[in-house]
This record gives sequence, C-alpha cells and structure tokens, in this order.
Amino acid sequence: MGAYEDLMGYERQTQALGQVAGRLGWDQETVMPRGAAPQRAEESQAMEQVLHGRRTHPRVGAWLAQINEGALDKVGRANMRHIRRRYERSRRVPSALAGEIARVTSEAQGQWAEARATEDWAGFRPVLETIVRLKREEAAALVAGGAYDGDPYDALLDDYEPGATGADLQAMFDAMRPRLVALRDRVLGASHQPAGLEGRFDESAQIRLAGELAIAFGYSLAHGRIDKAVHPFSSGSGLDVRITMRTSKTDPFNAVYATIHETGHAAYEQNIARDHLLTPLGAGVSMGVHESQSRLYENQLGRSRAFTGWLFDRFREHFGEFDIADAEAFWGAANRVYPGYIRTEADEVQYNLHILLRFDLERQLIAGTLDVADLEEAWNTRFAADFGVAVDKPSNGVLQDVHWSVGLFGYFPTYSLGNVYAGCLHQAMRAAVPDLDAFLGQGDPATPARWLRDNVQVHGGLYEPAELIERACGSAPHVGPLLDGLEAKFAEIYRL
Amino acid sequence: MGAYEDLMGYERQTQALGQVAGRLGWDQETVMPRGAAPQRAEESQAMEQVLHGRRTHPRVGAWLAQINEGALDKVGRANMRHIRRRYERSRRVPSALAGEIARVTSEAQGQWAEARATEDWAGFRPVLETIVRLKREEAAALVAGGAYDGDPYDALLDDYEPGATGADLQAMFDAMRPRLVALRDRVLGASHQPAGLEGRFDESAQIRLAGELAIAFGYSLAHGRIDKAVHPFSSGSGLDVRITMRTSKTDPFNAVYATIHETGHAAYEQNIARDHLLTPLGAGVSMGVHESQSRLYENQLGRSRAFTGWLFDRFREHFGEFDIADAEAFWGAANRVYPGYIRTEADEVQYNLHILLRFDLERQLIAGTLDVADLEEAWNTRFAADFGVAVDKPSNGVLQDVHWSVGLFGYFPTYSLGNVYAGCLHQAMRAAVPDLDAFLGQGDPATPARWLRDNVQVHGGLYEPAELIERACGSAPHVGPLLDGLEAKFAEIYRL
Repeated sequence: MGAYEDLMGYERQTQALGQVAGRLGWDQETVMPRGAAPQRAEESQAMEQVLHGRRTHPRVGAWLAQINEGALDKVGRANMRHIRRRYERSRRVPSALAGEIARVTSEAQGQWAEARATEDWAGFRPVLETIVRLKREEAAALVAGGAYDGDPYDALLDDYEPGATGADLQAMFDAMRPRLVALRDRVLGASHQPAGLEGRFDESAQIRLAGELAIAFGYSLAHGRIDKAVHPFSSGSGLDVRITMRTSKTDPFNAVYATIHETGHAAYEQNIARDHLLTPLGAGVSMGVHESQSRLYENQLGRSRAFTGWLFDRFREHFGEFDIADAEAFWGAANRVYPGYIRTEADEVQYNLHILLRFDLERQLIAGTLDVADLEEAWNTRFAADFGVAVDKPSNGVLQDVHWSVGLFGYFPTYSLGNVYAGCLHQAMRAAVPDLDAFLGQGDPATPARWLRDNVQVHGGLYEPAELIERACGSAPHVGPLLDGLEAKFAEIYRL
Repeated sequence: MGAYEDLMGYERQTQALGQVAGRLGWDQETVMPRGAAPQRAEESQAMEQVLHGRRTHPRVGAWLAQINEGALDKVGRANMRHIRRRYERSRRVPSALAGEIARVTSEAQGQWAEARATEDWAGFRPVLETIVRLKREEAAALVAGGAYDGDPYDALLDDYEPGATGADLQAMFDAMRPRLVALRDRVLGASHQPAGLEGRFDESAQIRLAGELAIAFGYSLAHGRIDKAVHPFSSGSGLDVRITMRTSKTDPFNAVYATIHETGHAAYEQNIARDHLLTPLGAGVSMGVHESQSRLYENQLGRSRAFTGWLFDRFREHFGEFDIADAEAFWGAANRVYPGYIRTEADEVQYNLHILLRFDLERQLIAGTLDVADLEEAWNTRFAADFGVAVDKPSNGVLQDVHWSVGLFGYFPTYSLGNVYAGCLHQAMRAAVPDLDAFLGQGDPATPARWLRDNVQVHGGLYEPAELIERACGSAPHVGPLLDGLEAKFAEIYRL
C-alpha cells in the first residue's frame, strides 16, 4: 500500500473515534444518569486526548510529506486538503497553550452559568479576559509565518468556515445591517400585527407531530432517532445521525421549528455520498453550510405560506381547535416579529442583527481594539442602536450566550453566513423546481429537497464552502436573495 | 511524580476509555438506529484497537519494571497485580494471532446465528474447528515458559476467573453433579407439581414492577438507568451502571427475575468504594464473583419463601387477580422445575447441569482430547445421561449458545462457580443477619444486602476472587451450602 492508502486507513479509525466522542455528547444530553457527570468528564477528556494525539501524530506528517498530491484524483486531493489543514493547525498551537485553553474554558462554562444566573458581569469579566488573551495567543500561533495573511481573526474563523475571511464577512454583513434595521422598524411599527398562538398544546401530540415533520422533510429513522433534550441539537455523521427536540406547553412552534431546523442539519449528514463514510469528506463541510441547510428547511421552506397552509390543518388534527382563524393568520403567527433581547428566541428579521453585533465585537476583541473591560458598554450601545431598546441586565446582554466562555470566537458569523447561503440556495432551488410551492402545500418538502441533496448535501467535504455554494447557485454567495426574500415575505404578512 | 503515579495516571485514562467502549455496546443494544450497524462495527473496532494499544504499550512495561512494589500499600500492590497480569497476557499473544482470532470470531457470530436458525451443525463445524485451533494456539502462547503450570485451559480461564484452575473446578463440579442429577430426578418425578402462571400480564405494569424491584434491591437510578433490550444485561462501572430488561406477555417472572439478576450485577459495580473509581480495582473482580451477586439476589433472596410472599401481593397490585391461590403456591410457581434443553431458560436445579456439561466438553476441546468432529455426539450423549432426554436438534444442543463461536472458552464454568460462591455467601449472610427473612418479607432486600456491600462489593478488585469469598465467609468456597440449600428448598416445594 502507498502512503495515501496508509494515511486514509489511519484517518478512517480517527473518524470512527470522532463519531464515538460525538455520541458520548449525545448520551450526556439525553440518557446519561445525572450522577454520572464527574466520570463522564474524564471519559470525554480521555477521548479528546486520543483524538488530539492521532491528529497531530508525527506519522501523519510523514505521510503528508510522502504523498504526491498531483497523482491523486479530486476526492484524494480534497481528503488531503482536510487532513493537512487539521494537522497543520493542530501542530502550530503549542500543546501547553491548547491544554490551558481546554482547562480554562472547561471551568469557565460553569462560571459563566453562575454569572448569568446572578447577573454578575463584573465577576465573570476576569475569566473572559483570560480567555480572550489565550485565544489571541492561539491566533498569533496560527498566523505565524504569514498564514491567513497574518489576520488572527481569520485564523480562528477558519476552524468553522474554511476559506472565509473576516474582511469578506464584514463587507457582506455591512450590506445587510441597514436593510435589516429598516425592515425591523417597519415591521414592528406596522398597524397590522398578526396574532400569536394562545392556549395550551398537548406535549405528546407535539412529539408525534415533530416526528412526522422530520420524516416529511426527509429524515431517515433507519439512520437516526429523535429524543427529548434541554436544547435541540443534531449529532453524528454517516449512518447514525440523531436529533433532539423539546416541547413547550404554550408554544408548539418551538417544537415544530426546532425539529425542522435540526432535520436540516441531520438530512445534510445523512445525504452525504456513502463513498465518503468515515473519511474527512463524510461530514458537513462547514458551520455556515450546515446552518444554510437547517435555516432553509426551517425558514424558506417551513415558514413559507405554502407549507404553513398545510401545517395549519396538521395543527388542528393534532391539537384540536385553537385561536387562529385560517391558514393566512396561521402563516402570520408562524412568522411573528416581536421585540426581545435573546438571540436564540429571535425571529427571522432580527436574528441576523444579533449575530452582526457579536461578530463586530468579537472581531475587535481578537484584533485587540476592544478590551473586555469595555465590552458591556459596547454591547449595550450597539444593541440600543440596532434594536431600539436598552439592555436591562447582563443576562439579556453580554452574558446571554455561552460561546465566548467556551472559547468559540469566529463561530457566530457562520450563523448569518448560513442564512445568506440559504437565501441563495433557495433562489436557485425555486428556479430548478418551479412547482416547489405545490410540493410544500401538500406537506412534501422532501421531494423538492432532493435538489439540495444532489447539489449540496451529497458532496460532503468535497468542495470548499464558497465553491460549493457557487456551484449549486451559479454565482458567488451574496446577501441579495436573503434580504429580498425577507422584505417580500414580511411586507405581505405585515401589509407594509 | 514517580513511576507508579505515572502508570496510574495513564491507567485512569485507559479505564475511562474502557467505559466509553462499554457504553458503545449498551447503545448498540438499546438505542442505536438499526441502519447504523456497519458504521458501529468500525467504531467499536477502533476503540478496541486504541485500548489494546494502550494496554500493551512499551511504556507500561517500562513503568512496571521501574516500580518497587514492596514500597506500595495494599491498594497499590493490587493495582500492580491487575495491570501486570493484563500487560503480560496481552504481550504473550502475538498480535497477528490476536487479530486473526478477532477477525474469525467476529465473522463466526453471524455464521453461528445462521447455522442455529437452519440447524446446520455440519456447516458450522469447520468454523468452530478453526476457532478451537486458534484458541489452542493462544493458550499455548500464554503458557509458554511454564506459566499456568503449563495448563492451556487454565490460561484461558484466568481471563475470567483469575487464580482459578480447571482441576479445582473439576473437583468442585464432580462433587455437585450426582447430587444435582438426583435432585432433578426426584423433583421431576414428584407427585406434587406446583402450577405455573397462566394468562396474560400487562407489559407496562411489568416494566413498572421491575423498576420498583431494582430499587428495592438497592439499585441507584442516580448512577444508572433501566431500558428494554432483547437480552437483559448490566453494563458499565462506577458512576454509570445501566441495566436492561425485557417483558413477556405470558411470563412476568422473566421480567422480574432477569431484572433482579441484573440488579445484582449492577449493585456490585455501584457499591465499589469510590476511591477505586477508574482504577483496575473499580470493577467487579471476576465473572464468578459477579455471577455470585446476581444469582444471590435472584435466587437465594428473590426466590425465597419470604420474598415471594411479599412479591405475591405486589403481583396482585400490578396485574390484578390471577390464577395462583396463595403465597405458598406463588412460591412454587416462582421455583418451578420443568424439562428443557435450553440453558438460559433453565431453573435453579438444572442450570448447573447445563454448565457442567459445557465445562467438561470445552476442557477436552482445549486439551485436544476431544475433536470438534465428535463434539455433537459427546454433547448429546452427556445430555441424555444428565437430563434423561435425547437432544432433538442442534439448536437445542451443540448450537444453542453463542459463547464458543465468539471464542469464549473458560467462561462457562464461572456461571456455576458464581452459584457456589452465592451459596457460601448466603450462608454467611444469614449468620450475620439473623432476621434476613423479616426484611425479605417486608420487601426490603436492600437492608440485609448491605452485608454483601460491606463484605464483598465495596472491595472491587482489591482481593483475588477466592480470597475475597474466603474473607467474607470465613472458609474457602465449597459446594455444600449451595446444594444443601437447593435440596432443602425443593424438598419443601415439591413435598419430597
């Protein structure tokens, strides 16, 4: 066997172990006995050490040096790109620094939860200062020798969205912000405001409906399962991709749209070509592309007029009569925009404004142009400007998200990038499947979603994210389709 | 840090990874999507390779050579004993042979299931011949240099029951067999035959009852959970010990006694001193001692007159009226002896006869005094002698158990050894807790079971199995208490 085959054999085991580590996370959030937590922490840490050891093993470097990439086919070159990127990134960060980051962020998760619960920003600030300092050191190590054109933020971003740069995203997001702020103002100021759902909705009926929706969107239970968890998530690749959901007595839309969202993530993983199973190409290629699938399923398909028309009847079947008169009003209820501080509860219009705020601030933190000491003021000023209200307490502001406390810098923008991708893909999908609304109106999103499977999902990690979207859409990703779509939909619903 | 601390730090991670591998098995039998099987096989294999690599790593050998065992305390010496035994056993078997055994037995599992389903002993025979040949090679490698006094069967047995020898077990079992055969004949020939349960029993009530029984026997749901599975089992050590159960519409005793049995295994793991968590001492010390706990909980406690008296009322609460008139008749129903070919369905009287048959045959297979070609005839001849009936088909005889096809030689005798230990422990427990029956009659086996916790379970792997039982009982394990107990109980029930 040649070096490439040896490397891929080794990589296959690493991928399999990565799946095991991921499933341990699923177990923890769904079925783990509560008293098992301390032991589980050691188990997860041991798995991470095994994985880190394999990814940075000198043997990998030797294979990479030996392999003649020019002699490989397209799949081989893509595999090499992934393995090389991961190897080089892991090797550049000194292991003492990596260990320190793991230790500090592991502790910080509890400290953040405590600080959020007690509104203690002052108490958490020194912790975040340490984390920002360590992440800046990590970024400096990654850009050493001129990588990422020396931009430390780009070095961190690359972990979640390979090939993307902070400057490109900045340009994209700067073009979005004024239109979103204007749309938000018009919607919230409109004289017609659609009513929301009122009353209580049977939770076992929500679970049944969510299961039916996952299948309607193409999720395979032969290679997955649906459980309840505190937070909805999707987990795993290949032949074992599991999702979770939750219920709320008063808000069945929560169960429904979280399930459709996670089905988008899971369908992506399930639809990757089987040839890529347990190879670097056998998982979603980036956070942005992943989010594009979940958002497109959830919003452009799931919150469309056509689909909610069908869903209205399912709601009446599952929950009996409720306070919404007709399908038109139900469409409005599923798309309601309301003021709020919290990103994870935000509607389609305001969601990206939450992200843009975090992106700008974290980019400045990593660049060193904003100190953690000034972060709360910067957050609150920006929030007032974009959302028109003052933040009332840290848990509604700078302390609301866990991301920074666990070291995730460069992650937030992939949410909005995913929305931008989703806008472009939806436009291309409509052109390719002209009777899309007819399928949606019959409760069959899975049939038109085959276009996504064949043009995006099946490729796994074969193409870089931007190239993948451009191949599917015929042009480079841009904000137009997303914003045009939002403006058109909300003008109709709010009679602007 | 010294070499001992280094070794123990490394070992702690290995133990944590072993728990992860075990939990993967739990997942597979309870919640895994059916289409995930091929990927899961690769995941499990990758975990096994990681574990094998760690256990045989030259670093372990270097640490073992460096450590001055005389300077260690009792716990330290016990840890060394476990690590050294595992290391030396793993190193003595050439990795090509270990790999070949893994490959052949992995395939053989499916071949065995197929052969059993089609009654195709002739088709499976060559597969078993290969496995016996490979296991004999493995045993020969293990005894090289005079280990295990050169006895290949002892070398295999040591994996499941450290310190036990085939000759000792032979003497023990030879003393049991005539008394068991005689008891079996008297019981099946008795004029009084207790009636069994008739009718159908609600399965969700069985699940509720089984959960209550697990807790009554001391199982902690803070560190465990109960799920349904095809086969009942217990899985995991330390803070995460899970059990499974199954239901049968017509036989609620199946759910009840399988759950009590698995609770015995799980309580053992849960009650090991927390100091031993994720060390070699943090798991049950041998298969025989493990089985002693599960059998004692199931039989000596769970099938006692006192406990079934309490259980009779619980049955009526959970299932309403059924066809058994009083507690006395219920005791008889829970202890019914009936002719049958299948070990896993056997009653307390006949179970050990099934084991003794297998033990004698597998000992001859490994010694080379019996060929696989002659195995079916040997099985059937022995079965007719001990059970008084002729085997009608291979699935009721030589093909009924999976053990040999997955390479488990030396495992079977631990079932009967566990029963012998259980007899001794039960006798000592009755002496130490004179009002045992009063607790059982109130449905509280957990309180008297504290004696087992304090005298057996808490120690984990601190003592060798025989020493552990001797310390708890005050004398070396012997067959008397088990057989005396069986003869007394069945004489009462069957009015002999």
